[in-house]
Amino acid sequence: MADPVSLARTPEPPYWAVIFTSRRTDGDRGYAAMAERMERLAAEQPGYLGIESVRDADGVGITVSYWASEDAVRAWKANAEHRIAQETGRREWYAEYTIRVARVERVYGRAPGRAGTAATATPRSR
Amino acid sequence: MADPVSLARTPEPPYWAVIFTSRRTDGDRGYAAMAERMERLAAEQPGYLGIESVRDADGVGITVSYWASEDAVRAWKANAEHRIAQETGRREWYAEYTIRVARVERVYGRAPGRAGTAATATPRSR
Repeated sequence: MADPVSLARTPEPPYWAVIFTSRRTDGDRGYAAMAERMERLAAEQPGYLGIESVRDADGVGITVSYWASEDAVRAWKANAEHRIAQETGRREWYAEYTIRVARVERVYGRAPGRAGTAATATPRSR
Repeated sequence: MADPVSLARTPEPPYWAVIFTSRRTDGDRGYAAMAERMERLAAEQPGYLGIESVRDADGVGITVSYWASEDAVRAWKANAEHRIAQETGRREWYAEYTIRVARVERVYGRAPGRAGTAATATPRSR
């Protein structure tokens, strides 16, 4: 949202993901400035690992933020400035939204910086 | 991607999420048809719970599919037609991608169909 960032670089799992899917109301209503501020504020929190955020022309958006621990997720949810944004979001910005808190167990992927073109896997220990 | 679907309606957690974030290469190269086909095929698989998918004008996309169990996630990853799409994706469609398999533990949200405007929480049992 804030800038054309690419994908988040996260450490080996396990870690936590907060999957925020939403459908915007019409009009900006201060949304863009808040979204940029919240991404910046999130990045300053303890345990923050990264964020990925996309919204399409229909106003449907998915933002996934990554956190080192469940405590870090809880602290971010309880952050005072973030709470104000959450309340305004419910009232003004989102016609509909869902927040899912999930524990990341395995990661596969390919990034330009990684060797080879085959997918790399990081299976969790069993 | 296939149609302007809204947010996924998923059951109470726990369940599984596959978070697929990617950056497209330039040009379609058969991507749109494959993406539509894969969403349709996913929806036919055992344990499928829903999908949310957004791609912005810069070619960055997030698709989150939801599954009833880790076995359902594994079976979808191993699906023959899906494997061909995965291989073509690595070769043709994605400049960069990450797939994260995560266990959804808690959900908060507001949908038009739900009562009230306050967020509803489904804390997991402890």
